Amino acid sequence: MTVPTRRRLIDAASVLFRRQGLAATGVKQILTAADAPFSSLYHHFPGGKDELAAEAIVDAGARYQALVGGVWDAEADLAGSVAAVFDGAAEVLAATDYADACPIAVIALEVASTSETLRLATARVFAAWGDAVSARLIASGVDESAARPLAQSVIALLEGAFILARAAKSTEPLRAARDSALTIAGAALAGTAGPRADDPGTREEPGTGAR
Amino acid sequence: MTVPTRRRLIDAASVLFRRQGLAATGVKQILTAADAPFSSLYHHFPGGKDELAAEAIVDAGARYQALVGGVWDAEADLAGSVAAVFDGAAEVLAATDYADACPIAVIALEVASTSETLRLATARVFAAWGDAVSARLIASGVDESAARPLAQSVIALLEGAFILARAAKSTEPLRAARDSALTIAGAALAGTAGPRADDPGTREEPGTGAR
Repeated sequence: MTVPTRRRLIDAASVLFRRQGLAATGVKQILTAADAPFSSLYHHFPGGKDELAAEAIVDAGARYQALVGGVWDAEADLAGSVAAVFDGAAEVLAATDYADACPIAVIALEVASTSETLRLATARVFAAWGDAVSARLIASGVDESAARPLAQSVIALLEGAFILARAAKSTEPLRAARDSALTIAGAALAGTAGPRADDPGTREEPGTGAR
Repeated sequence: MTVPTRRRLIDAASVLFRRQGLAATGVKQILTAADAPFSSLYHHFPGGKDELAAEAIVDAGARYQALVGGVWDAEADLAGSVAAVFDGAAEVLAATDYADACPIAVIALEVASTSETLRLATARVFAAWGDAVSARLIASGVDESAARPLAQSVIALLEGAFILARAAKSTEPLRAARDSALTIAGAALAGTAGPRADDPGTREEPGTGAR
């Protein structure tokens, strides 16, 4: 079965954007990787590389969400899900010589201050991920008001650990992030997120998860 | 007092790399921003843009470490320090229209799979930050064995929140990350990091911070 040219262009662009980013990826490199003729790019994406990038961001974001959601949902409880997501991410990273982490992080940082269209595309992906994680946290018993910030922190831990892990070529940051994600998820379930009784000091304002 | 050309080149490159990354930043753009003649780049950096990038990574990493270390050390206790670092980062981000986050994150993700020299430069910066945070955590009473993974998670929370905050043009992810950093720091101080008694399920292996 032949993969349609449009699909091949998106897939090739996604792989390159994920590993090296938008600016380092030339149109020729995408076409070569997609085994597609030059004319096909502007036929399928009249806006050129930027239109392809917007499409690739949305597509890669939805695929990653489905992949991670599947890993999450295969576990019996919240701790198992959180551990499985971070462990799975570490496994993929190590198996790809630390190339395949978040599909849109490089491009998100590159475009945040330079392309409003592409920034919004990445923002929509992150928002969808946040909603997906929030819904699962609530289903696991986390209070609705605590779910949104907790979801953001879990995603932040994964994203940040990806940066450290790729730089160091080590899965150690992902293991640390997994344990921290388990700690904050456990605290949210127990209703003790935010300032704790044994906190080393005072806070100026209440934590979003404190009740 | 005139700023030496070499310094101007590093400063200009750092600002551009931080906001848009390595690949999107051309030599001409750096020279224009630095108000430096073309010949000066290869005079000061015979290896060209890559040599300047390596120097800019090390320089920006050390500066950011000093800046954050100063914010951290100005507070009386661990919770105050953690909150001040995240709040300060959020303030800078909002004040720069979400441009100035981590000075080396974009470049770290761009080069992780494409330039071993630059990857190692970013890895050294992250390692130095980890050591600096670890030392402070230990000084605040965190167990030595828990300090290293906790430091990595705090840095990961900041880095990940930067990605989400820049994409969304909102400081909300940094507030969520701050509260989570406070939770994991408090848990580490109390010796309850890792699996908790009220964890929603079982773990396959003990958390690094559990004792």
